[in-house]
Amino acid sequence: MIGSFRKLFAAAVALSMVATPALADGVIDNVNGMTMDAKGQVIHFTGIVIGRDGKVVKLLQSGDKRPERPDWLSNQKGRTLLPGFIDAHGHVLELGFRALELDLSATKSLDEAKAKIAAYVAANPEKKWIIGGGWNQEKWGLGRFPTAADLDSVVGDRPVWLSRADGHASWANSAAIKAAGVTAKTATPDGGRIEKTGAEPSGVFVDSAQGLIDKVVPQPLPKERDFALQKAQEILLAFGITATSDMGTSMDDWLAMRRMGDRGALMVRIMSYGAGIETAIRVGGNGPTPWLYGDRLRMGGVKLYADGALGSRGAWLLKPYSDAPGQSGAGFMSDTLIQNLMSRAAMDGYQVAVHAIGDKANRQVLDAIEALSPTYKGDRRWRIEHAQIIDPADLPRFATLKVIASMQPTHATSDMKMAEARLGADRLAGGYAWATMLKNGVPLAFGSDYPVESPDPWAGWAAAFTRQDANGEPFGGWRPEEKVTREQAWWAFTAGGAYAGFAEDKFGRLAPGQAADFIIVDRDPFLSSPTDLRATKVEETWIGGQKVYVRKQ
Amino acid sequence: MIGSFRKLFAAAVALSMVATPALADGVIDNVNGMTMDAKGQVIHFTGIVIGRDGKVVKLLQSGDKRPERPDWLSNQKGRTLLPGFIDAHGHVLELGFRALELDLSATKSLDEAKAKIAAYVAANPEKKWIIGGGWNQEKWGLGRFPTAADLDSVVGDRPVWLSRADGHASWANSAAIKAAGVTAKTATPDGGRIEKTGAEPSGVFVDSAQGLIDKVVPQPLPKERDFALQKAQEILLAFGITATSDMGTSMDDWLAMRRMGDRGALMVRIMSYGAGIETAIRVGGNGPTPWLYGDRLRMGGVKLYADGALGSRGAWLLKPYSDAPGQSGAGFMSDTLIQNLMSRAAMDGYQVAVHAIGDKANRQVLDAIEALSPTYKGDRRWRIEHAQIIDPADLPRFATLKVIASMQPTHATSDMKMAEARLGADRLAGGYAWATMLKNGVPLAFGSDYPVESPDPWAGWAAAFTRQDANGEPFGGWRPEEKVTREQAWWAFTAGGAYAGFAEDKFGRLAPGQAADFIIVDRDPFLSSPTDLRATKVEETWIGGQKVYVRKQ
Repeated sequence: MIGSFRKLFAAAVALSMVATPALADGVIDNVNGMTMDAKGQVIHFTGIVIGRDGKVVKLLQSGDKRPERPDWLSNQKGRTLLPGFIDAHGHVLELGFRALELDLSATKSLDEAKAKIAAYVAANPEKKWIIGGGWNQEKWGLGRFPTAADLDSVVGDRPVWLSRADGHASWANSAAIKAAGVTAKTATPDGGRIEKTGAEPSGVFVDSAQGLIDKVVPQPLPKERDFALQKAQEILLAFGITATSDMGTSMDDWLAMRRMGDRGALMVRIMSYGAGIETAIRVGGNGPTPWLYGDRLRMGGVKLYADGALGSRGAWLLKPYSDAPGQSGAGFMSDTLIQNLMSRAAMDGYQVAVHAIGDKANRQVLDAIEALSPTYKGDRRWRIEHAQIIDPADLPRFATLKVIASMQPTHATSDMKMAEARLGADRLAGGYAWATMLKNGVPLAFGSDYPVESPDPWAGWAAAFTRQDANGEPFGGWRPEEKVTREQAWWAFTAGGAYAGFAEDKFGRLAPGQAADFIIVDRDPFLSSPTDLRATKVEETWIGGQKVYVRKQ
Repeated sequence: MIGSFRKLFAAAVALSMVATPALADGVIDNVNGMTMDAKGQVIHFTGIVIGRDGKVVKLLQSGDKRPERPDWLSNQKGRTLLPGFIDAHGHVLELGFRALELDLSATKSLDEAKAKIAAYVAANPEKKWIIGGGWNQEKWGLGRFPTAADLDSVVGDRPVWLSRADGHASWANSAAIKAAGVTAKTATPDGGRIEKTGAEPSGVFVDSAQGLIDKVVPQPLPKERDFALQKAQEILLAFGITATSDMGTSMDDWLAMRRMGDRGALMVRIMSYGAGIETAIRVGGNGPTPWLYGDRLRMGGVKLYADGALGSRGAWLLKPYSDAPGQSGAGFMSDTLIQNLMSRAAMDGYQVAVHAIGDKANRQVLDAIEALSPTYKGDRRWRIEHAQIIDPADLPRFATLKVIASMQPTHATSDMKMAEARLGADRLAGGYAWATMLKNGVPLAFGSDYPVESPDPWAGWAAAFTRQDANGEPFGGWRPEEKVTREQAWWAFTAGGAYAGFAEDKFGRLAPGQAADFIIVDRDPFLSSPTDLRATKVEETWIGGQKVYVRKQ
């Protein structure tokens, strides 16, 4: 008896070892599925076989035989399935904080903002500081920066500190300025600007000058960071974003991400770029971290800043601003310093992603890459973040130097009027030049720069192939020669973002061996008008073969 | 055919599910094995069945049937097998740095130290600072602290900064003092002391005064921390230490531990206590981290310091030092501050471990625990680290307040002469009172305080039941009434350390469900004289059922 049992047992083991993979698969079936192949061609399918490792085993066509006894089966009854979106440029924790703090991003006038601030202050009597952001004096049509006096009329007793939508300027009331000890005599830090009324600080602090107030603002507690990260993940999953770059992960952000990963709650895949080389090296040591938590988290690079933003006139231009003749913005670093920092990062194998908005900043970064490339050979994937205003003479250098252009379609449709005011139409020839980049063979990675803009990838996608805003303005699209096709934009919002993060072998498309990261949506994006595409509802979000979000009906 | 295949297949799966554990087991056989049961009784065995999860399935007696087809089998040919040691109080990174830096711990005179420093300086021309430690003016018989002038005669051109063996004082040359800008006018920081010659700093900086120089010492790079951690692990494994508390993990230490864990190279189990509450909360957020990397790492608590050390007269005493009548040492914190910090830690569920050496410091911590206990109920396991000099009136309070006494046997045998000089024999009634602690029912956890002492657990074990040093001094043992038995000491160096780290369900003894953490040694510790026990050689160290160290022959 024991002998025959043992024989049967041995046979069973042999069989189960062979048969295990088949047994372990799950199936998503009856979908209007689409993805891109490695060449960027759209392919269709009706089902996916998913392994226990959360990866795609096989895409199924309607005639293909289904596994007979799958672990699980999800019948999607004909709904549309797409790969999850990848946002190539976001700020994960800030997205969560923005959602939890006073959010002025929807306000359309200073008065509306003041009303919202007053309501928030009344509702949060325990908060010692009123912290928030999202304001944009351009959207308000204010014609000037807001002032401390504007805020004092609403809140006099507690410090208020509100960042501009682009994060490159912040607005304080008098209590905050006083708490920071800033006076008419305070020196303006390099790379910053203090807005003034006469000699006195008027309330807005640009770029590095924000540090004067930041340093006295109470830092969020770790548990508040945990809430913010959780909130950010919820927002991203609801938009169908399954992976994102985090552009400037601070040490405390990183620790929050690890806490979430350690407790098995990190779902969205984060390609982290350390906030400066010190952070990256403190975290990763001699090089990038491995992929952690089943390819959910990796610090693979470093985020640097070459300049500020256009809206606050912090972008560094070759010639003065059209609407502020004495100003050309400011570079954050000397050529030597930026090259040294990029070199230190590259030396240890960190990918380098540099924020550059103005044409002078972009040239500085291209020059640095050109200088460093002979030393740091191999597959470096230098990234320029935003790459907004490029001198036409510099445009071909992106391809020559193999630079990834990490761009944000909704920045163009949000900025268009402001950019024309700042630069004049003539200097926009190399502005937001998506189609030119593609034509030149430059890899494009699209994102939103959330929370500067909404992370909504449907808005980003529509903006990318229309160059129109949500209202369909302007007719025919803004500088329409820089439109990309619907397919090209989709690539840049999926596989392009994975490539930009050295993750193209892991996710970004649906193909055997890639992660089963996908979304179920309520319409076919290739059969929808731009307006309809923007209204797409994400019904379900799946990451690594697991359903991590279902829309509340 | 397919039908019968499927039936067979289903049977195979059902069988394999039942049978898998048996198949997956490995066996260590033919050992002279011993461990303790949960009550502290020594039990013997001749083999261990180990599951694929790295845990003990079963201890085998000589008559027990062995698994017939184990995954693997290790025949130890009669060698002695013991559970791995647990060091309840060490400093992991410092152990590695000490091994990589200039190490004066073996020097027996100032002249010998100077020769060693000169040789190191000559061998390391690239080092901008000469960093090291391990000196002990008591061991040198110097009768005074060393001075900057002593060092200047060896190294004039580069700063030198050498920590005392106990870490509570450091010795600078004039170049280091100059680099730090310390002069006769420099104020002495609270909780510290600057040794002086006349008005001038003479070269030694005690306790918090070390910060005056520390702040200009170049910090180790992350990769240097990685080397140090690797080195520390090698040292610990070679001594047969399979788990350790890390008493005061800095953020950078933690990040190095995570790097090692992330790349699968962390073998030794680390029970980490954050260096201060801010570190713990930054790392763990709202409470301890989970056990990470297969129970290899957890930040479960907070390390605080109530006072300094005896050697440097930084220990806080109820009455002045016998050999320095004007001095009583200094408490590092007010009663209010220490209670606030302990409360903040306990509120978030962190275990609290407080360094207290002098009788006044121990009383302060006991008072704090007494004050906090009504608020923080449940299984808190308050720890006092060192608990060296206790006023006899306070001894029973350890039991009443359920405090763990985390003590270091080799401190007693190293300190005995110095302690008598500092305190006089009369005030040692509650000093190093291991047996009294046990008699009172206080849980003991033994460690070494490496690198203050060698991590060598064989020396610690022998010291614990002899109260004699390596030379067998003094005859009969120092204050022999405080000896514990060989078995009690073994418990405190194994299961006691696990209990002190909330890990008694995971490791510390060999029993079904516990980690298979054990060592193979060249002699039977219960049949060895103290001298022979100290000479024990660890042949192999196993953690989680994996062989992680083999002695080079």
